[in-house]
Amino acid sequence: MPRYKLDIEYEGSSYVGWQRQKNGKSIQGSLEYAIFSLFQQKIDVFGAGRTDAGVHALSQVAHFDSEKHLPNEKVRDGLNYYLKFENISVLSVSKATCSFHARFSAVMRHYMYRILNRRSPPSVDYGRVWHVPVVLNAKKMHDAAQCFVGYHDFTTFRAAHCQSSSPFKTISYINVAKKSDEIIVFVSAKSFLHSQVRSMVGSLKLVGEGKWSNEELIQALLDRDRAKSGPVAPSMGLYLSKVDYVD
Amino acid sequence: MPRYKLDIEYEGSSYVGWQRQKNGKSIQGSLEYAIFSLFQQKIDVFGAGRTDAGVHALSQVAHFDSEKHLPNEKVRDGLNYYLKFENISVLSVSKATCSFHARFSAVMRHYMYRILNRRSPPSVDYGRVWHVPVVLNAKKMHDAAQCFVGYHDFTTFRAAHCQSSSPFKTISYINVAKKSDEIIVFVSAKSFLHSQVRSMVGSLKLVGEGKWSNEELIQALLDRDRAKSGPVAPSMGLYLSKVDYVD
Repeated sequence: MPRYKLDIEYEGSSYVGWQRQKNGKSIQGSLEYAIFSLFQQKIDVFGAGRTDAGVHALSQVAHFDSEKHLPNEKVRDGLNYYLKFENISVLSVSKATCSFHARFSAVMRHYMYRILNRRSPPSVDYGRVWHVPVVLNAKKMHDAAQCFVGYHDFTTFRAAHCQSSSPFKTISYINVAKKSDEIIVFVSAKSFLHSQVRSMVGSLKLVGEGKWSNEELIQALLDRDRAKSGPVAPSMGLYLSKVDYVD
Repeated sequence: MPRYKLDIEYEGSSYVGWQRQKNGKSIQGSLEYAIFSLFQQKIDVFGAGRTDAGVHALSQVAHFDSEKHLPNEKVRDGLNYYLKFENISVLSVSKATCSFHARFSAVMRHYMYRILNRRSPPSVDYGRVWHVPVVLNAKKMHDAAQCFVGYHDFTTFRAAHCQSSSPFKTISYINVAKKSDEIIVFVSAKSFLHSQVRSMVGSLKLVGEGKWSNEELIQALLDRDRAKSGPVAPSMGLYLSKVDYVD
């Protein structure tokens, strides 16, 4: 039975997030509806990253199984046809082996967080960036962010309702770059806790505006206390940009 | 009497264009409403480029006069306050001399046209790019586009209802660049005819997909016949990116 692997892009503003929920339209549910329309079967879809409401993806990966053999291009174009009124685009489709799992086979997830750091609000990028009107020091944010790299207890930077059994995660890479009037945070890990990237970015923003020192950020991490996190950055600036697999 | 010079960004999807019109909301009208709210006076605004419906601006320039002296930052923040439900953002405000005119003092206008050149439709950039699913050769488009540079009769690439007294214009620069799955056309001139950039881009697209040769594009230009233009590219991909003045 073929396992279809999808590479997907979406603009998350009008969705309750990746996961099917009763309170609104989800990315997963919309994809399953498109798959149902194309394959005439009710099929479950599994995604690499369960992005929150309002979070975008430049390259989310998902898979589903069907005994129907369809050419990859037909599946891509067919799903995009049924998604034509959604802000979801299937970039490519390939066949995977039955040992492949979009979520459990992922070895690295890459996120990007866009901050528009200028006085005036966004227009062209409205809903796609976090608007921070106070001046941020990207260099200080980058330097402070390096304390996140490695294996740590991220209790401070984890949503209260996070369902992960352990608060330990390994951040492989974090980089804060300034590009014209944007500050972009790139962060990579095998996996993340719920709201981890947005909690980290919200705290780094405090460092950037001089409210927190480098040491205070480290102390917040060491305290392993959710109450010590900076305010969680809004979802509109966050993008799941890539998921890596070992082939 | 102070002359206020504005640098403005907007996402044009929900507007009938720069110019005030009876059939819907315009950028000019929305700005004048914000100025009226802040200055408590009915004041006309003049823009550098009269962008069409759906066209965006990264840096449109406009000016208006008022006998009220307000600090530049107050005007910027005040206008943005009254524009908070619009997709228009005032980036900066400065005072200009009375000889400055946003439209008539402009010495160069720079436009950018974004083509998303991939099979799958846009999601994150929906409404901000022209989606062309057939493969385009950016190099061929760039080479062919050089025939536009210089002083020419652009009758072929001019809207039927263009009100300019002459079809002659001087294109100073045109560059077609490929950047991941986008092809971006950069074009600069002191001024343009109505729909000129979009007519040129629509014709270059025919070159990019191999339907027109380099020579056919040149012939279309030489024919000075509106019927010889390729289909006009949609407004959603076009951005007024900069306006130059001699200070």
